[in-house]
Amino acid sequence: MRLPRGFTASGIRAGIRKKRPDLGLIVAEDGANAAAVFTRNRFLAAPVVLSQAALKKSRGRVKAAVINAGCANAVTGKPGMDAARRVRSRAAELLGCDPNQIFLASTGVIGTPLPDDKIREALPDSVARLSAGGVEAFSHAILTTDVGPKVAQATFTLDGKRGRIVGVAKGAGMIHPNMATMLGFIMTDAAATPAFLRTALRTAVEESFNCISVDGDTSTNDTVLLMASGKAGNAELTGTLSAAGAPDFIRALTQVCKDLAWMIVRDGEGATRVMELEVRGARNERDARLAAHAIGTSPLVKTALHGGDPNWGRILAALGRSGVRFAPRRIGLSVGSIVLVRDGEPAVYREKDAARVFSRERVPVIVDLGAGTAMATLLVSDLGHDYVSLNTDYRS
Amino acid sequence: MRLPRGFTASGIRAGIRKKRPDLGLIVAEDGANAAAVFTRNRFLAAPVVLSQAALKKSRGRVKAAVINAGCANAVTGKPGMDAARRVRSRAAELLGCDPNQIFLASTGVIGTPLPDDKIREALPDSVARLSAGGVEAFSHAILTTDVGPKVAQATFTLDGKRGRIVGVAKGAGMIHPNMATMLGFIMTDAAATPAFLRTALRTAVEESFNCISVDGDTSTNDTVLLMASGKAGNAELTGTLSAAGAPDFIRALTQVCKDLAWMIVRDGEGATRVMELEVRGARNERDARLAAHAIGTSPLVKTALHGGDPNWGRILAALGRSGVRFAPRRIGLSVGSIVLVRDGEPAVYREKDAARVFSRERVPVIVDLGAGTAMATLLVSDLGHDYVSLNTDYRS
Repeated sequence: MRLPRGFTASGIRAGIRKKRPDLGLIVAEDGANAAAVFTRNRFLAAPVVLSQAALKKSRGRVKAAVINAGCANAVTGKPGMDAARRVRSRAAELLGCDPNQIFLASTGVIGTPLPDDKIREALPDSVARLSAGGVEAFSHAILTTDVGPKVAQATFTLDGKRGRIVGVAKGAGMIHPNMATMLGFIMTDAAATPAFLRTALRTAVEESFNCISVDGDTSTNDTVLLMASGKAGNAELTGTLSAAGAPDFIRALTQVCKDLAWMIVRDGEGATRVMELEVRGARNERDARLAAHAIGTSPLVKTALHGGDPNWGRILAALGRSGVRFAPRRIGLSVGSIVLVRDGEPAVYREKDAARVFSRERVPVIVDLGAGTAMATLLVSDLGHDYVSLNTDYRS
Repeated sequence: MRLPRGFTASGIRAGIRKKRPDLGLIVAEDGANAAAVFTRNRFLAAPVVLSQAALKKSRGRVKAAVINAGCANAVTGKPGMDAARRVRSRAAELLGCDPNQIFLASTGVIGTPLPDDKIREALPDSVARLSAGGVEAFSHAILTTDVGPKVAQATFTLDGKRGRIVGVAKGAGMIHPNMATMLGFIMTDAAATPAFLRTALRTAVEESFNCISVDGDTSTNDTVLLMASGKAGNAELTGTLSAAGAPDFIRALTQVCKDLAWMIVRDGEGATRVMELEVRGARNERDARLAAHAIGTSPLVKTALHGGDPNWGRILAALGRSGVRFAPRRIGLSVGSIVLVRDGEPAVYREKDAARVFSRERVPVIVDLGAGTAMATLLVSDLGHDYVSLNTDYRS
């Protein structure tokens, strides 16, 4: 796959991780307008602190993004900030831009010093290998425990001109709050102001990464960056999302985000299937999200999902302790088209049928609280032995 | 071990579970004053609903407790209530007492009908096998995925008379909200009013099961029952906990509850070690509990604990997303006597030393928020392959 016009990328080994590519670089040859969303974790990694400030100082202009895997550079104090600044300076020097136009992101172990010397030494090679087809190498270089790379694309039409959006992601942070960092880099050749991109990105993230997550549940490094090179030649998108042509761009952007979100969950550490959980009938949205979160993070629910066991008792038990208000006798629960619980009591169904749906790659589960009209959805990966193996030995 | 004076117990197979004892019976030969604490889950199992009401109607008098494993009789609607009532009537008939003096508890799968016919058929055998030494058989009959039975005892002196307390427990509900039901049955020969027992039990539970848990995080069936036969011959304990003799009784009761709570965590499904987590320096107790809960339920923290890996980055990442207010640069974290994080930055320590502490059976971890004076403690079991195996195949 090729990047949208105006972008090149590379992915190489800098020696932070053992025998794995660990340094990704994206360059917007003539610069790009940009917007980003960041983690809400109280512990902000050094690259998050720097990139937030840099985007403001550059008024939403980005020349390049430098991403390393193998070290999160989080909870590393002043030395961590200094190390990130040195990486940024070196990249700015090599690309001939202001350091505030360099966007940084890191992923890996928290609390260990960033080996910035290795990154700075490797950067010239990163620059030398930049190409429009470099997205594949890039997508590999930002991975940690991911099973595989995650790349999605979509097209849109603006002023009769076709444009493209390519997104690359890693990890599972915003969806699986307890797992690794989630990073996303989305490139488009659309012309758009930073302000428009901010609104567009927030909307797309809300319907993809965030509508399947719960506010505040993020790692120290989660970041999604959207860059627009303007090479499509459309009249610059500005102002509201309902402006002429904007809806089609938003649709394409949301689609890329949704595709990446799905890949992230499906590739959850050790995951073999995904529950598409929908909580409806809640008194308000907060309740709906709270209920979905309690169910979706329950190890008992996730292990039952792994076993393909439609054990709805565990789902209701998690719901019951969620703190959400509802009347037990009004609860409904269904799996696919099979109703398992109606009015708070077990319905009549064939166990075999429910088990068949629960063994699919996508398991649709609807929980109806019967208490209102608000709803929330959550993609839930299962919890199996591979998750335990991956995380027991993570640092070794 | 023998039961306190005035009690007999038995444990037999009723055929609810395959090839495992599943029916426990405790009888207070001349009745007992009693008090109980129940789950706060919104879904109350039928036996919980019935026993709560019965205790009120009998004004705190209990003749016997009937406990079955293999079926929780939760989310079973009216048929479940009817089945529980039939069990209760049969027991009352056999023991010649009011049905409201029969206390019920169930544990097992949620949402499947209670095979009350099997229980009613087996009850005469339960009664025939009652003995003062029956605590061992009883302690086995109430287990589900527990590795082994949990029995604790303590003695006290009241009015110069020695008395005993024997407690039996199963499961891990109140401590590991996502695991199975927690049941506890505590018998003493002390003489005490139901009102005194209520206050005493609440105090003891607060310092044992509940001080290592988070409010609201309970299964559909969690129950702790305290019964006092009065056979010790002391002047009946009544009124406040500071009454003459009361403190020694409370101490013994709390000790039994603490011992059982420890056994429950240590025996957490697939557990190999326990983190004794202490969160201090919080702005208020709610924050302290919230922080402890976020850390203690994080699969990443629990798998690191399983691997004996002092991966404090995961602990801080969980803390950072807990929603609790603190300044990252004031955070401290230590493992045993080794300081790993000071003022929000990694401290100087030898990895080997930290790993050694993290490999013990008990791993003391202190997180200091530096934001106030409130604290909370939590016992956290690890998350290993056995947990996954146990829960993937639970219903089969």
